[in-house]
Amino acid sequence: MGKELTAGIIGAGRIGRLHADHLTRRVPGVRVKTISDVILDAAQNCARETGIPNAEEDASRIMEDEEIDFVVICSSTDTHAAFIKEAARVGKHIFCEKPIALDIGEIDQALEEVEKYGVKMMGGFNRRFDSNFARMQQLVSEGRIGEPHLLKITSRDPAPPPIEYIKVSGGIFLDMMIHDFDMARFLVGDEVKEVYANGAVKVDPEIGKAGDVDTAVVTLTFKNGVIGTIDNSRKAVYGYDQRAEVFGSGGMVDSENMSENRVHLATGGGISEDLPYYFFVERYTDAYIEEIRQFVDAVANDTPVPVTGLDGKYAVVLGWAATKSCREHRPVKLSEIDPGLE
Amino acid sequence: MGKELTAGIIGAGRIGRLHADHLTRRVPGVRVKTISDVILDAAQNCARETGIPNAEEDASRIMEDEEIDFVVICSSTDTHAAFIKEAARVGKHIFCEKPIALDIGEIDQALEEVEKYGVKMMGGFNRRFDSNFARMQQLVSEGRIGEPHLLKITSRDPAPPPIEYIKVSGGIFLDMMIHDFDMARFLVGDEVKEVYANGAVKVDPEIGKAGDVDTAVVTLTFKNGVIGTIDNSRKAVYGYDQRAEVFGSGGMVDSENMSENRVHLATGGGISEDLPYYFFVERYTDAYIEEIRQFVDAVANDTPVPVTGLDGKYAVVLGWAATKSCREHRPVKLSEIDPGLE
Amino acid sequence: MGKELTAGIIGAGRIGRLHADHLTRRVPGVRVKTISDVILDAAQNCARETGIPNAEEDASRIMEDEEIDFVVICSSTDTHAAFIKEAARVGKHIFCEKPIALDIGEIDQALEEVEKYGVKMMGGFNRRFDSNFARMQQLVSEGRIGEPHLLKITSRDPAPPPIEYIKVSGGIFLDMMIHDFDMARFLVGDEVKEVYANGAVKVDPEIGKAGDVDTAVVTLTFKNGVIGTIDNSRKAVYGYDQRAEVFGSGGMVDSENMSENRVHLATGGGISEDLPYYFFVERYTDAYIEEIRQFVDAVANDTPVPVTGLDGKYAVVLGWAATKSCREHRPVKLSEIDPGLE
Amino acid sequence: MGKELTAGIIGAGRIGRLHADHLTRRVPGVRVKTISDVILDAAQNCARETGIPNAEEDASRIMEDEEIDFVVICSSTDTHAAFIKEAARVGKHIFCEKPIALDIGEIDQALEEVEKYGVKMMGGFNRRFDSNFARMQQLVSEGRIGEPHLLKITSRDPAPPPIEYIKVSGGIFLDMMIHDFDMARFLVGDEVKEVYANGAVKVDPEIGKAGDVDTAVVTLTFKNGVIGTIDNSRKAVYGYDQRAEVFGSGGMVDSENMSENRVHLATGGGISEDLPYYFFVERYTDAYIEEIRQFVDAVANDTPVPVTGLDGKYAVVLGWAATKSCREHRPVKLSEIDPGLE
Repeated sequence: MGKELTAGIIGAGRIGRLHADHLTRRVPGVRVKTISDVILDAAQNCARETGIPNAEEDASRIMEDEEIDFVVICSSTDTHAAFIKEAARVGKHIFCEKPIALDIGEIDQALEEVEKYGVKMMGGFNRRFDSNFARMQQLVSEGRIGEPHLLKITSRDPAPPPIEYIKVSGGIFLDMMIHDFDMARFLVGDEVKEVYANGAVKVDPEIGKAGDVDTAVVTLTFKNGVIGTIDNSRKAVYGYDQRAEVFGSGGMVDSENMSENRVHLATGGGISEDLPYYFFVERYTDAYIEEIRQFVDAVANDTPVPVTGLDGKYAVVLGWAATKSCREHRPVKLSEIDPGLE
Repeated sequence: MGKELTAGIIGAGRIGRLHADHLTRRVPGVRVKTISDVILDAAQNCARETGIPNAEEDASRIMEDEEIDFVVICSSTDTHAAFIKEAARVGKHIFCEKPIALDIGEIDQALEEVEKYGVKMMGGFNRRFDSNFARMQQLVSEGRIGEPHLLKITSRDPAPPPIEYIKVSGGIFLDMMIHDFDMARFLVGDEVKEVYANGAVKVDPEIGKAGDVDTAVVTLTFKNGVIGTIDNSRKAVYGYDQRAEVFGSGGMVDSENMSENRVHLATGGGISEDLPYYFFVERYTDAYIEEIRQFVDAVANDTPVPVTGLDGKYAVVLGWAATKSCREHRPVKLSEIDPGLE
Repeated sequence: MGKELTAGIIGAGRIGRLHADHLTRRVPGVRVKTISDVILDAAQNCARETGIPNAEEDASRIMEDEEIDFVVICSSTDTHAAFIKEAARVGKHIFCEKPIALDIGEIDQALEEVEKYGVKMMGGFNRRFDSNFARMQQLVSEGRIGEPHLLKITSRDPAPPPIEYIKVSGGIFLDMMIHDFDMARFLVGDEVKEVYANGAVKVDPEIGKAGDVDTAVVTLTFKNGVIGTIDNSRKAVYGYDQRAEVFGSGGMVDSENMSENRVHLATGGGISEDLPYYFFVERYTDAYIEEIRQFVDAVANDTPVPVTGLDGKYAVVLGWAATKSCREHRPVKLSEIDPGLE
Repeated sequence: MGKELTAGIIGAGRIGRLHADHLTRRVPGVRVKTISDVILDAAQNCARETGIPNAEEDASRIMEDEEIDFVVICSSTDTHAAFIKEAARVGKHIFCEKPIALDIGEIDQALEEVEKYGVKMMGGFNRRFDSNFARMQQLVSEGRIGEPHLLKITSRDPAPPPIEYIKVSGGIFLDMMIHDFDMARFLVGDEVKEVYANGAVKVDPEIGKAGDVDTAVVTLTFKNGVIGTIDNSRKAVYGYDQRAEVFGSGGMVDSENMSENRVHLATGGGISEDLPYYFFVERYTDAYIEEIRQFVDAVANDTPVPVTGLDGKYAVVLGWAATKSCREHRPVKLSEIDPGLE
């Protein structure tokens, strides 16, 4: 562990409060000095609960503060790119929640500034730090299943977000499946070249009226020939469902869904277990802590961050490719979205 | 149970011998009178082992025999349609191994004769009778998962067949995935309208040279909006892998792969289980017995057979649609293969 | 496989019919010539169903028949020893259902005759041939868990037998736990020197009035220092429960209970599976077939039988020791039951 | 949540540091003011790491401090009773690690003081707060398995403690199985009346030379007739093994052992999982947090504590009864240890 670091958090919504809690209580070697939110009350409440000394309405208080080593960007998506650029220019390291931006051009500009000013930037793909998926990736990368051939990811939410949120979310492929696109690249260790997306409105007709789908299956073709599928549903009545499987020339690795206990009840009516963790906060608490801990480590020790800005861009490109494929009902190459990606 | 029935078996290869064994030892109410094979030795050996009194080179001995109530067609695929038509004309009920034929026109003609002469005909989709898949179908059809939204089928063989076999097999979609197409229709309880197929040569380059793929993923769109995926590999080093999952508005039903025991060994190196059943004979013995038992029941009691000739046709149409999709790299509607299917 | 063997079955009750079915349909190399039962109708019905040519009231028809190579004794327990002695004297090999007798002296006499006339004798401990327990024993005997330290056996029936049966059964330790005593010796590969038994009447007060218990836990101390426990209940509402675990210096091996499928249903109310196999016929069909097949093999090839008469005796001695321990509320050495056993 | 509470921690060994960490970071509504340890360095180190303002050598600094509402006693076992009495007299609530004392008379005196001065006292049986065992207890107490009949607890450590520790530990029944005795009472919801213990030296002969055993099985007879077994080993090479099962008239509830992930690796050699959590810190972190959180809640809101001093006494009585039973090779009633317990 290197020197103690000073942090500023931008955004005191659900995910901002979660990072505030973890950085103040669960990650050693960090002092959170300031949290900002456009709703000052939110920043003040979070500061009070977690013992952060300063709450601000304006994030520039953080950007201007020379004591602050890194920022954690948890504000609304449309502000991410601007904050990244600003932080880079003032020499602060950056942890930014997904997505960097919905516009590829904006992402490129933000990443250029990060590059130019030589700060570290890490994207918020927390699932990579889950004990299941991290272990799977390790086994695959060690060659324990030989050359990967097939990938399957199942990712289902317990309930759809409010329809107002869905309308501005960018759609299921950019809002929800973006995590699975990152997981796919993480597990296979190679880049996707083409996607084919199928979507349906099965959960709520209002989602269809909003121009989105709530049930989707995407087939991914990787450069190394791996064929992957991702299935998403906005509503699994039994709770959050997060599983993956990688099959290769030498075997298969897969992970079960997680629940709080492994208790079985056998009665005359059958054998039953409790439901899985309800949603991402319950399921991924440890992953969120490990994620930010590794970011802090990388900053403290000046080592590479485990999730890069480019990882963040790829996930968005995949989201757009899937969106286009679903609309045009044909396979779409990533180079159609970003000609720079062959 | 109705009257005792007399059976003739056409073909004494692996699957013919399997049915001979089951019909003589495991299914009550049946007498197998004759088995035929173009290689007389094969028929004689099987007859001796199972106690079937007559072995013939020529299947017409079976067709001409007025005592014989039904035929079990296990000869090579290219002879199925002709035998079906012949059996129908002489009023014998028919159990025919998959596929009925690779040519849709031939299938239609065969099914017309079956219709015209009013005999029963059942296709050999044994997996429907597996205790796992039968239970899943029951739960889905009872509405226990609400309206189906998503389907996943994993089906992997332990090792590819000889390359000479692959060359004449019709390709992975018609030879191997045909079982999964039937399973998809069986589990969802609706018809597919479109398929999108991705294939790769990952197991053996010789398979690629033969114009086939050995690794494949197909996305199915059903008329009711269900989106399904099937993944196939010709080689899973850990053995036969047969699993399925149906997800719906009210829940999910899935089945694990099967092995001979549920023993765990925990040592300092990890916790391990034995491999699953090696291949279809080990995994599906009980399903094969149940399949032919239900056919015999249907004939004896003059009730409908559980798998129809039309089921057999659909699976072949799906195989051709997937083949076309894989070659043309685009989604293919079933009506492109058979305009009669909307 | 050696020469074809001719068999006679004594007793056409449930277990006799089961062996008749297996010997006629599932075990190659055997012809069952005669089945006898003191209720001639029972013998005749079984003969008709399985195609056995002769049904007799008197077992001496079997004993006198020089063509018959071996007898399968499935009659009532009190007749076992006499039939064993008679069969031994006429040079027939013997498969005898458990227990050989309830009286140790009778067992010793029967085993002496078997020894004297040099016939093979195998006891009916079918569970040794179950794919789970056979695999566990193999792993233990191969040293995969090092030196065994602890053993646990759980064995619960779905429902108690009729109270009239219980009254003449010899009690839970001799009627039900006898199988588990054999399993304990089989899995550990050593002899028990002492037992301590606890019993309770929890299922049905009528069982208590009959002088028996319906819930029991026995601690076994083996000569090699392994400590084992067996728990029995006459009534598990969720069905037959058959599990075991052996723990040692190098690890642990255990087996789960078995059910017909591995299907899971996840709904808003929980995740559920179907119940296990209902009772021994459902659970152990394959084990019964394998048991009698191995006996036939041993006779045909003149090799040792896998379960000996002495195995049969040990199980009864353990049953008596546990009965005594439960009554006298203290640990009981096996040598208190049979001074020959140190 | 009531008012903020002030805490003092006595003892800065492994378990003291663990509680210090949880009380400062993971439990809201508490300020830890002072930590003491007879080794002042240990107290100072812990204070520095967790931000506790005062570190003392002498626990009287805590006892005298009127600001302190409750003490957490984590010192060596022989000091527990004295600290309890002292804390009671100065009106501080008490959380005390197990065991209260090894001497029953001392326990009684300590509990009398607690009673007399009306402070709350909770014993440290952390496993009751594990998500598995808590859920099992809930299901049993709700009657979901009907009337309990049988109980099984498996509890095995990954490696024995140093032999010097074992010599002063009180022996396996008072040091290790004491947790399982409490679990047995917790799960069954009734009191034990008699125990029968079997022990063996299988792990390390040095343990035997120290007069202790390292492998033990205890049978418990409850007042309500439930028969329970507990098995302990000081060394499970595959890691910490913590499982339980309760069987009753209406069904069974059981829990599997826990591991960090649910990843499976299938290769040609078998299907494997990672080892379980290594030991109690890894396995029971969440349980420790929940335990102390519930204690703090009870103090803050003046509600009953979930584990009482009497619970602490019962576990010690059971430990002595098992020790006596193992030595005298006979079942021992609890009233032989404490005539007050019938």
